[in-house]
Amino acid sequence: MRSAVSDPVVSDKDFGIWEGEVAAPLPERFDASLYYIGRIRTPWKERKDCPKNARGSQEICTLELDPRWAEALRNVETCTHLVLLYWMDRSRRDLVLQVPRTYGKQCGTFSLRSPARPNPIAMSVVKLVGIEGTGLKVVGLDCLDGTPLLDIKPYFASTDAIPDAQVGWHADRNGIKTR
Amino acid sequence: MRSAVSDPVVSDKDFGIWEGEVAAPLPERFDASLYYIGRIRTPWKERKDCPKNARGSQEICTLELDPRWAEALRNVETCTHLVLLYWMDRSRRDLVLQVPRTYGKQCGTFSLRSPARPNPIAMSVVKLVGIEGTGLKVVGLDCLDGTPLLDIKPYFASTDAIPDAQVGWHADRNGIKTR
Repeated sequence: MRSAVSDPVVSDKDFGIWEGEVAAPLPERFDASLYYIGRIRTPWKERKDCPKNARGSQEICTLELDPRWAEALRNVETCTHLVLLYWMDRSRRDLVLQVPRTYGKQCGTFSLRSPARPNPIAMSVVKLVGIEGTGLKVVGLDCLDGTPLLDIKPYFASTDAIPDAQVGWHADRNGIKTR
Repeated sequence: MRSAVSDPVVSDKDFGIWEGEVAAPLPERFDASLYYIGRIRTPWKERKDCPKNARGSQEICTLELDPRWAEALRNVETCTHLVLLYWMDRSRRDLVLQVPRTYGKQCGTFSLRSPARPNPIAMSVVKLVGIEGTGLKVVGLDCLDGTPLLDIKPYFASTDAIPDAQVGWHADRNGIKTR
């Protein structure tokens, strides 16, 4: 475990490391590999332009699916909501402790939705608003334009919706007392 | 696009192809790579033993996290529920149309939660019931023992819970009329 502050790979302020953040040495080899199945088109060209919270965004974004997978869309049009997995290809993968700017304290990477994580796969639940060929119009994303798409899944409320779930450290940060 | 029925790579009935299923040629190269961050310990050694529906399972399973990532667990204990991403490493990646056995009709891969998909990343929402060191006890999984773990995320009800979401083809299958 080396200090993140002295990490020599820091290169830019958007994707670099902040004071108080800590990195771990990465494994020597990868274990599995991914195909990009398409790209996500959004209005946001730089990280600073992205919405702070996907729920706050009502922008319609477009999933451009590789035509190779066109047949795999059958019945997707019957879903009101989808789970999207996508690849945050510009993120660091070695951070174990991060300091959210709006919180100011160290949090473990697995207690955060930050794109910086060992496998920078983001998960978002989106509302499906239309399909034209291999283009899907969705609402609820906050990622950069051109982000690689990894997967599309139907959202099942029966297993995926837990309305009373709590993230204690985040609620406490907002002054809400939890366990 | 070739017919799946004549696909020569079919090798076993658990992970092979079924009548009516269709495969697409896979891309020639991969685009990104993954680290396994741990393993999931469950009671199920073979696919036939796995629960049909994760909601139906109250078994406690254990996430065995690689100690390299131990610090990344800070604050995870304050979460009631987690999003897990894991790698269905025994699944076909070329199916575009599949025939769920309980449905009997062709469905597009992206309208299904089947492990067979271009990137066989499963997503499950689980209840966190305890943490001991780098072992996390969770409820809500239905995967095979030894499944590679890819990511742990906090579940935020504000963005992840959509209780009224519908999967039309699935509801219709159960006799519920939807759009």
